Amino acid sequence: DHTIVCGYGQVGEAVATALVSAKKEVVVVDHRTEHLEWAQAHGIHTLVGDATDEEVLRRAGVERAASLVSVINNDPSNLYVVLSAKGLNPDLKVIARASDESAARKMRRAGADEVVNPYQLSGNRIAAMMLAPRLSRLLSGNVTSDHFTVREISVPDALVGRTIAELGRQTGALIVAVWRDGQPLRGRPKEVLQAGDTVLVAGAADEVEAVEAQRLG
Amino acid sequence: DHTIVCGYGQVGEAVATALVSAKKEVVVVDHRTEHLEWAQAHGIHTLVGDATDEEVLRRAGVERAASLVSVINNDPSNLYVVLSAKGLNPDLKVIARASDESAARKMRRAGADEVVNPYQLSGNRIAAMMLAPRLSRLLSGNVTSDHFTVREISVPDALVGRTIAELGRQTGALIVAVWRDGQPLRGRPKEVLQAGDTVLVAGAADEVEAVEAQRLG
Ligand SMILES: [Ca+2]
Ligand SMILES: [Ca+2]
Repeated sequence: DHTIVCGYGQVGEAVATALVSAKKEVVVVDHRTEHLEWAQAHGIHTLVGDATDEEVLRRAGVERAASLVSVINNDPSNLYVVLSAKGLNPDLKVIARASDESAARKMRRAGADEVVNPYQLSGNRIAAMMLAPRLSRLLSGNVTSDHFTVREISVPDALVGRTIAELGRQTGALIVAVWRDGQPLRGRPKEVLQAGDTVLVAGAADEVEAVEAQRLG
Repeated sequence: DHTIVCGYGQVGEAVATALVSAKKEVVVVDHRTEHLEWAQAHGIHTLVGDATDEEVLRRAGVERAASLVSVINNDPSNLYVVLSAKGLNPDLKVIARASDESAARKMRRAGADEVVNPYQLSGNRIAAMMLAPRLSRLLSGNVTSDHFTVREISVPDALVGRTIAELGRQTGALIVAVWRDGQPLRGRPKEVLQAGDTVLVAGAADEVEAVEAQRLG
């Protein structure tokens, strides 16, 4: 259940670096060997080749991968990769880069699960920096500290049937919200956790870790 | 205290549209009249001219503006605008676009308060979509609903001296965190609100609005 990152420019580098830091398995595909050397130096698996070639995607393990990110600096190439990858593995989660709204629509029609337009995203982020500077910095992970951090954690079977108040008392963390059937709900103390729930947890780093430990332990 | 947006491409359009939706006063500067027509059609103030010309920045009101966003698709132009704008108004908050890390360092040296690299931002966002999909969607404002929303709200003088527990009881909202001296702290019930604090509030839309009403009323 690894992730394939097609295109190792600035976008691909940022994706791969963040995923590897989070201990995820990543394979980077690019036809420019010089771009892949830096990735290799950072312990990222690489494959030299053109991601628009189905044989290259097969060698990258597309049939058993969990997800694929197509972030080549070229809309037609990304569209081609999305169509090829979904054809080889319909269950694959695919995220594609698109340089404008018209390209974004094509990516979605080709089966991309999520599309990112760097320019629209940047404009939205700049507006958020002005309208809600602290929240925007917090959410971008730039000011997470020992004193305060937020994380989403899927609820393990062991916690099903317990209330939010119980989980909060036991760990010291604040249970801000519960996602159920894809929708976020305010985390009310008497709410009983159900199988498949994911919780939004806030607090000091050790409090948030205590919720994570419930999940792992 | 308006905002000047230099460059009306995709980034500038997204910034201006979001700020105008939030009832902020915006002036868009671009030398391409055809790009400005759409902005005008949406009720955004426009000024035809090259933002690298100080006279154009003066006509856009740079000396009395609160902030300036330079998002031209060209690093040297953005650097030039940052230097000109800070020279004309040192108190101006300036956010600049940079297409790589080397350009970003130059923008900061020239006085930019914040720098956004669309490619690095996109890579980080894609990684967040994979590592924390719900939180990332929530924070990007894509799933804010009547049932659950988050907002940062500056604490008005009328609430100084009250505790977080009191504010929560009165409004029904969850006070998740308090920013004090720039640092976020977990919102503990007995914490007393101080002048200059900003709170991170979560809850149903009407609960969050009730906190906002305390500020306005
Ligand atoms: Ca290619
Ligand atoms: Ca120019």
